[in-house]
Amino acid sequence: MRRAREIPGPTIERLCKYHRVLARARRQGMSYISSAALAHLTGLSPAQVRKDFSYFGSFGRRGVGYEVHQLLSTLKRLLGLERGRRVAIVGVGHLGSALAGYPGLHSRGFQVAGLYDNNPARIGHLVHGMRVRDVASLAADHAAVPIDIAVLTVPEGAAQAAAEQVVNAGITALLNFTPVALRLPPHVLVRDIDMTAELEYLSFCLSARARAQDEQGG
Amino acid sequence: MRRAREIPGPTIERLCKYHRVLARARRQGMSYISSAALAHLTGLSPAQVRKDFSYFGSFGRRGVGYEVHQLLSTLKRLLGLERGRRVAIVGVGHLGSALAGYPGLHSRGFQVAGLYDNNPARIGHLVHGMRVRDVASLAADHAAVPIDIAVLTVPEGAAQAAAEQVVNAGITALLNFTPVALRLPPHVLVRDIDMTAELEYLSFCLSARARAQDEQGG
Repeated sequence: MRRAREIPGPTIERLCKYHRVLARARRQGMSYISSAALAHLTGLSPAQVRKDFSYFGSFGRRGVGYEVHQLLSTLKRLLGLERGRRVAIVGVGHLGSALAGYPGLHSRGFQVAGLYDNNPARIGHLVHGMRVRDVASLAADHAAVPIDIAVLTVPEGAAQAAAEQVVNAGITALLNFTPVALRLPPHVLVRDIDMTAELEYLSFCLSARARAQDEQGG
Repeated sequence: MRRAREIPGPTIERLCKYHRVLARARRQGMSYISSAALAHLTGLSPAQVRKDFSYFGSFGRRGVGYEVHQLLSTLKRLLGLERGRRVAIVGVGHLGSALAGYPGLHSRGFQVAGLYDNNPARIGHLVHGMRVRDVASLAADHAAVPIDIAVLTVPEGAAQAAAEQVVNAGITALLNFTPVALRLPPHVLVRDIDMTAELEYLSFCLSARARAQDEQGG
């Protein structure tokens, strides 16, 4: 996991949480939000919330809280979301198709710029109103209108080759849904989402808990 | 994020990586694997690999490496996967349907025990050969044959209520695909997968990098 240089990783992750909660607050018509409410909704401490926001130059007013709209604009600028990131989905199977239609992307500043596959049976088909394109055209498409992030939803066996194709096209940020530890040049930003690993983690916790209970009981 | 008591979280996460790489090695017919190969495939250092395995009582033989089958059995026992965890998918929209057919689940010891939804238009339909059941029957189903983990793939607005329904049914481990910070009793294990937050994180890194380049250039 490679991180932006100056702001530490955990802070960036908290900023993402604030952004999510504030976007929802605005949808619900709230104008102000207290640090206590922000803390409750993000699962963080009120002191942490106040510390983060003072670091980024935002100060709540006593008894009123933070201005939702102003805070959102600041965060969007910090998160680089003000101009709407263009996302390509590479691999249009069940998962890729599901993500192409995921309402949480558009509502949070991401635009699905294209769907790509290397399977001739899929290329040309419409998925959520978009035509699936040949992954071989990724480089030309990116040269024409830059793509910010590629989402990798190909089968495990195709992951490394597809990731290299993405990087060779000139895209430098990847969200990897495959369980493969990708080997890519150091300038490429990668985030991994491994669903089965999360299930294994839960499974491990369940086993550990059951053993602890056995030991207490016996 | 709640963790099993004795083994630290990062160790558990590394165990999951080893498990994945070893399962693939076995599928490819390998009998032995070196710590260097394990390190390469997981992106960890060989020293870390040897340290982790000695901690769990496994020792490789010099010049031969670790016995794949034995190591897998040990890990499966540690991860609680030896008996095949039963997973319920709650929310059978695009994402829930995609997960129901995800080949990586079955191959790594998870069994989709049931698909649940509260939408009458979905209940009774076949998805990947399984009939979608009413989420109201979750408690009775869990009482008949226990479900280990619920995967939450409902829309954001339905997340907290659906999670409470899962917990009230008696299920104590949840994989949360919604962007909602669930408020649940402390005995419930929760792992969050927030795809949009990961995209926001990448977006932030891209912006931070662009700013750093501007400053160097200017």
